[in-house]
Amino acid sequence: MKKEIEPVHNMKEFSDDCHKLLASVSDAMYAIGGKWKLMIIIAMARGNNRFTELQRMVKGISARVLSSELKELELNGFIIKKVSVGYPVSITYELLPYSESLDEVVGALSRWGIMHREKIKSDMKNNLDEK
Amino acid sequence: MKKEIEPVHNMKEFSDDCHKLLASVSDAMYAIGGKWKLMIIIAMARGNNRFTELQRMVKGISARVLSSELKELELNGFIIKKVSVGYPVSITYELLPYSESLDEVVGALSRWGIMHREKIKSDMKNNLDEK
Repeated sequence: MKKEIEPVHNMKEFSDDCHKLLASVSDAMYAIGGKWKLMIIIAMARGNNRFTELQRMVKGISARVLSSELKELELNGFIIKKVSVGYPVSITYELLPYSESLDEVVGALSRWGIMHREKIKSDMKNNLDEK
Repeated sequence: MKKEIEPVHNMKEFSDDCHKLLASVSDAMYAIGGKWKLMIIIAMARGNNRFTELQRMVKGISARVLSSELKELELNGFIIKKVSVGYPVSITYELLPYSESLDEVVGALSRWGIMHREKIKSDMKNNLDEK
């Protein structure tokens, strides 16, 4: 039946294609999924470069988690930690060019998030109106 | 200083804009973040509609987690659970039109995931070549 609806695919290709799509999205979620990584990158792209600024901007993140997320972001080549010489030592985090590769993903998630919030609001309103 | 680089923003707007972007991405990650939800939707969009098919397709998911993720996807209006009358009872899960709103997000994540895997491979190759 499926062959008639999807004439370009045989079932083998169809299933391969699905595995590829699953693998690529899984790779992406592994690197940038979770609650915090994209939020930290967004906050940094808007000029928040110190630990305390990031903690203030990314609501709800604990110092311990922020610290470990920053380490992972550094390992993955998204950011770099800069320690200034001098006293007191000043530590800043800066985005590396590779973080810009996430622009499309951030844009898509942001547009979807806005749309989804509107939908939930209107669903709630409709539920109230029905009562 | 920032004002010169970004003449359309004053710092207040700049910070508001950052909060809005953070909130929308946070909303999106809350609804579809995590390891499994998008994977389940992708597998369903490729014709896997039974629990056992989904468990086979989404590598590494346990029955308990798949069951709870399906419940959340249903609550959020992405899928519907259909229970047939008859014996034995047959249960299938079907995508609702709202799941299509995720196409752009899935596409962006998939493209990024493919690119990221290639980058990691080439980084590893370069590291080996240098040794």
